Amino acid sequence: MAKKNSYDELRQLKGKYLNYFLAGFVDGEGSFNVSFARHPGLKSKWIITARFQVYQHTNHAEILQIFQETFKTGRIHPKSGSNVMVFTIDSKRSLEEKVIPFFQKYSLGTKASVFEQWVTIVQMLNRKEHLTKTGFEKIVRIATEMNKVGKGRKYSKEFLMNTYGLEEPSETTRLTLPN
Amino acid sequence: MAKKNSYDELRQLKGKYLNYFLAGFVDGEGSFNVSFARHPGLKSKWIITARFQVYQHTNHAEILQIFQETFKTGRIHPKSGSNVMVFTIDSKRSLEEKVIPFFQKYSLGTKASVFEQWVTIVQMLNRKEHLTKTGFEKIVRIATEMNKVGKGRKYSKEFLMNTYGLEEPSETTRLTLPN
Repeated sequence: MAKKNSYDELRQLKGKYLNYFLAGFVDGEGSFNVSFARHPGLKSKWIITARFQVYQHTNHAEILQIFQETFKTGRIHPKSGSNVMVFTIDSKRSLEEKVIPFFQKYSLGTKASVFEQWVTIVQMLNRKEHLTKTGFEKIVRIATEMNKVGKGRKYSKEFLMNTYGLEEPSETTRLTLPN
Repeated sequence: MAKKNSYDELRQLKGKYLNYFLAGFVDGEGSFNVSFARHPGLKSKWIITARFQVYQHTNHAEILQIFQETFKTGRIHPKSGSNVMVFTIDSKRSLEEKVIPFFQKYSLGTKASVFEQWVTIVQMLNRKEHLTKTGFEKIVRIATEMNKVGKGRKYSKEFLMNTYGLEEPSETTRLTLPN
């Protein structure tokens, strides 16, 4: 009961107040991330995906609906093998037109510098700069920097840099994986 | 640099906007908790402590100062054996006079029902209702309920209930510890 009412109370907040609440929530629980996956069909052999995500235990996932209502885009889906739900926006257009302006207006605290780095990457992806080796390497460098605090990446900076455009990494390259 | 500016930007928000941001942050990262510790000197043999806490990695701990500035009370301290800093308010008077009214005004979403249960416990403690066996048991029940999602407690509900006022729990009681 209490939970239901509390979400409705949030929904009834005047626009700006709700937006500041959501910015605070994202500053605590949100994630501005960039992932790299091997993709044989691409020239670079890498696909880069930028995402804005908010995680929440299934029991309290209604807050994710409020994010969806606010951004008027994004999807809510279970995180596999857990009791966690995720709100994800990964459309490059929505990131540029909705997510970036939102957090430029309702600014972040603890995640402000990660957000700035992530914005640089989103804008580079939208300008297709990741399709050149120089652009790709710059993105890898920024993404590594963003990740200083937190969980390690699946692929090391060195592995990413050394396999740009390579179909199959050499044994030597594989051995440079430091994490 | 970016980090420093972003905290100053938050500090310059008009009062209500900052408060909604902080409410959102707490809804994501805050903790309204109650702990039980054995205390031979007390009639009940238990000391109950209610706390409002916000955790943050040392690198971004400046947000905790903004909480301290906003509440004009509380302490910031390291969490032992980690890179985490904690903002804690545990003075019963400050909880009742500052923390409770704040989150009644700037209301929570995902943590609304835990907050309501925690308010009941803080008010019972302030009315000294925990000093009777009935009051103590009610507090144990609510605290167990609050903890449904999340980490387990050190002491089980049964252990707490069975050792009220007992100097040394019997072997049998110890054995009932189910988590």
